Amino acid sequence: VFIRELTAEECDQELSRASLGRLGCALDHQPYVVPIYFVVEDHHVYSFSMPGKKIDWMRINPRVCLQMDRVTSPSDWASIIAVGRFDELRDIPERREERAHAYRLLQTRPTWWEPGSVPVTRPSGGVGATPIFYRIDLGHITGQRASQTSNVA
Amino acid sequence: VFIRELTAEECDQELSRASLGRLGCALDHQPYVVPIYFVVEDHHVYSFSMPGKKIDWMRINPRVCLQMDRVTSPSDWASIIAVGRFDELRDIPERREERAHAYRLLQTRPTWWEPGSVPVTRPSGGVGATPIFYRIDLGHITGQRASQTSNVA
Repeated sequence: VFIRELTAEECDQELSRASLGRLGCALDHQPYVVPIYFVVEDHHVYSFSMPGKKIDWMRINPRVCLQMDRVTSPSDWASIIAVGRFDELRDIPERREERAHAYRLLQTRPTWWEPGSVPVTRPSGGVGATPIFYRIDLGHITGQRASQTSNVA
Repeated sequence: VFIRELTAEECDQELSRASLGRLGCALDHQPYVVPIYFVVEDHHVYSFSMPGKKIDWMRINPRVCLQMDRVTSPSDWASIIAVGRFDELRDIPERREERAHAYRLLQTRPTWWEPGSVPVTRPSGGVGATPIFYRIDLGHITGQRASQTSNVA
């Protein structure tokens, strides 16, 4: 098994294929990790969520980490880790265009019935709650790939 | 699509099936998420890693989050989130038995060629580095499951 660091271009390629990842946020030294579906465009990650713990936490501490992987087998996988900053696309006139853009991008997804996106019967996301649209502005991105051969491709 | 909270027993069931998860740690308000393979036994998660960023961070701040999911389709999935505490099984006489136990458990895995477990050619995990064995003592665990029917099973 050969493992190597991915170049910036390869990281971008992997990112553009990804739609499911794990988002880490932190509050008071406690990390919290949740699965999210998203759309990536130009080092911006777009997603939405019902109100809840991760939104509460990211509003207080916008520093996040997004991890994505594509595991074909234990000896054939790619993993990308990006630091980023949460930016809520609030429902205010100044951000109307950005929200509309996010909405269009997210509509291209096959389904909305996904982890983190659906209202669950509990106090934080009850009936009538409005989804939060947000963007993650990606910073430093690193990646690794494992394969059975030493081929670069 | 029906989404519901899992009971404690169901969370344990999902945990016992899992071997791949995402581990979140945090330092100075920056979260960091990496994929790890592990073995679960009695609310303890056993894993090992070459030296590197996540080990450095968890030694400073042992508060972690472990997230696992089993996604069959966007409308059929289970996701478990557990908070936990990093406990390094150091190579000292007092922990010899615990290390041996962890080693035996981890040997039952099909392969060691997995993310986070293999030396990569870079300063933090070069040739000759020794793997770090560690345990995560799980605290509060929550889980959700989505399915096409409202059946409890």
